[in-house]
Amino acid sequence: MRDARVTLSHGGGGKAMRELIETVFTSVFQPDTMEDQARLMNSALQEPGARLAFTTDSFVVDPVEFPGGDIGKIAVCGTVNDLAVGGAKPLWLSAAFIIEEGTEIALLQRIVASMAAEAEKAGVRIVTGDTKVVGRGSADKVFVTTSGVGVIPPGRRLSADQAQVGDMVLVNGMLGDHGAAILAARGDMALSTEVQSDCAGLGHLMEAVLAAAPNTRAARDATRGGVASVLNEIAEAAGTSIQIQETALPLRAEVKGMCEILGLDPLYLANEGTLVLIVPADEAEAALAAMRALPEGKGAVAIGKICEGPRGRVTMQTLFGGQRIVDMLVGEQLPRIC
Amino acid sequence: MRDARVTLSHGGGGKAMRELIETVFTSVFQPDTMEDQARLMNSALQEPGARLAFTTDSFVVDPVEFPGGDIGKIAVCGTVNDLAVGGAKPLWLSAAFIIEEGTEIALLQRIVASMAAEAEKAGVRIVTGDTKVVGRGSADKVFVTTSGVGVIPPGRRLSADQAQVGDMVLVNGMLGDHGAAILAARGDMALSTEVQSDCAGLGHLMEAVLAAAPNTRAARDATRGGVASVLNEIAEAAGTSIQIQETALPLRAEVKGMCEILGLDPLYLANEGTLVLIVPADEAEAALAAMRALPEGKGAVAIGKICEGPRGRVTMQTLFGGQRIVDMLVGEQLPRIC
Repeated sequence: MRDARVTLSHGGGGKAMRELIETVFTSVFQPDTMEDQARLMNSALQEPGARLAFTTDSFVVDPVEFPGGDIGKIAVCGTVNDLAVGGAKPLWLSAAFIIEEGTEIALLQRIVASMAAEAEKAGVRIVTGDTKVVGRGSADKVFVTTSGVGVIPPGRRLSADQAQVGDMVLVNGMLGDHGAAILAARGDMALSTEVQSDCAGLGHLMEAVLAAAPNTRAARDATRGGVASVLNEIAEAAGTSIQIQETALPLRAEVKGMCEILGLDPLYLANEGTLVLIVPADEAEAALAAMRALPEGKGAVAIGKICEGPRGRVTMQTLFGGQRIVDMLVGEQLPRIC
Repeated sequence: MRDARVTLSHGGGGKAMRELIETVFTSVFQPDTMEDQARLMNSALQEPGARLAFTTDSFVVDPVEFPGGDIGKIAVCGTVNDLAVGGAKPLWLSAAFIIEEGTEIALLQRIVASMAAEAEKAGVRIVTGDTKVVGRGSADKVFVTTSGVGVIPPGRRLSADQAQVGDMVLVNGMLGDHGAAILAARGDMALSTEVQSDCAGLGHLMEAVLAAAPNTRAARDATRGGVASVLNEIAEAAGTSIQIQETALPLRAEVKGMCEILGLDPLYLANEGTLVLIVPADEAEAALAAMRALPEGKGAVAIGKICEGPRGRVTMQTLFGGQRIVDMLVGEQLPRIC
């Protein structure tokens, strides 16, 4: 690549665009064809009763590189996780880039390398993509939109409305690391911390949970809006209440400290590798053990349970034995967190 | 919706985001579930030999509304067309929105209505989506990324490397209308014109062509980079030359005039509903007749043929009987055309 920075001509559909695409993107992602369309088959899709899962997410995280990841890693993990928590085996990803004129080619190359590495870990292939360039000031460096296609095996059904009174609420580890890492990385707060984003693909973890706890009712990854928002959605869909224990919440001392200083609630901090599971009580131990056997689940714990009560109400028993309502996030806690 | 404009809290993952998504997006697109993931099945996918087609495109067109369309229509048509020209029947779309703080909710609603209308025409469903909000000045109003999934029936194979010497090059109608319409809509040139974007879904047209001319070798929609870029790609993939006739190019007088005034070449102007087909000579008449029977193909004509000669060379016989080389676009003609 002769240019060090992206120019508008890299988005024009001609020679410069072809050079950018070939040098930066397709040489790394290695799609099967240079057609605009990927053509795919997987025998799992042809099993009677199998369903196709399809999901999309745009990523606009600021800064684009942060402790524990970058916008490329988060884009691949986020889409893999959306597929996995619905019970699908992630297979194929698309990646569309909106690039601000002037962005360093070297930055794009780091992002792409990070996407390729994460895709390989997750066992998915990035099979098709697109590149657009906008003038300086019309976007902020680079936005990435990934879509994913996977296969849900016959008979597998995960959905929040299946949660039943008595089920346990499990998480795979520390909460709020991503939000805390981004907050610190922005530098606005002069916070010095070692916290890294928890950004990780959860596909293998989900498969392990479903093998150990086949009656798992529902799973979510708690991203924007944090664990609190996910619990509210589940309680709403299931028509039940949820009760969690403050003492059970897995929080790093640094994240706790940052929240205390800034008046933030860690339940609303974003995560990028945090699984929230609803599991029948008699399978909860098996699910926890299966998670703890994998690196991304080594901090797995139960944090609460589904209980009777008004539809959609989430309450937390506090450190001091009191009760407080954990509502949906109102407004926003931190823009451009993912 | 109480707010007239999008605020950062509409991207925060909480109540405001849910209100935006429900009021503006899901009430119109009506996905089957509010899960992050669409779960889909179509019997065509289970036919032995069927393949899945998967494609993605980001849209950053400026202005977002223009004569003949808007960013939503172009996003749906563009993705439908990418699927269709590869021989796939388009089935499902995802739609991801990156919205600048301060964007009018009413604008979003017009874009969404336009997407829903175009999806219905094309016979596809918008089944999943995402919304992100960035601060004012970090994006320009709204960017839309659509991905599409379709099914390629068993035995169907369209690809540029199948083009053979003697095949005809067909187009479905007027060239350059989209580029000309956007150029005029920007207002920089003080051009007054009635030209509308040709933005249209080409799925039904492709099916009609493939029924009438089953040995069609390849199809492309000529978007960024125009017909010239598509012809260069085909000649390169097929290892042949292509010759076109200037007198055969279907051009509106207004587009021709605009190109003459501004020194633009209509072969490089973008289109959003222009099909370029490579068809064996003995099926060309049938393909043309099939196209002319549909509104989006009523201007169908042959513009050239595949011929022997250096790999990747595209030449045009000019009005005056001379020959000139039609190269890939170098640099860019018009940024943010789609």
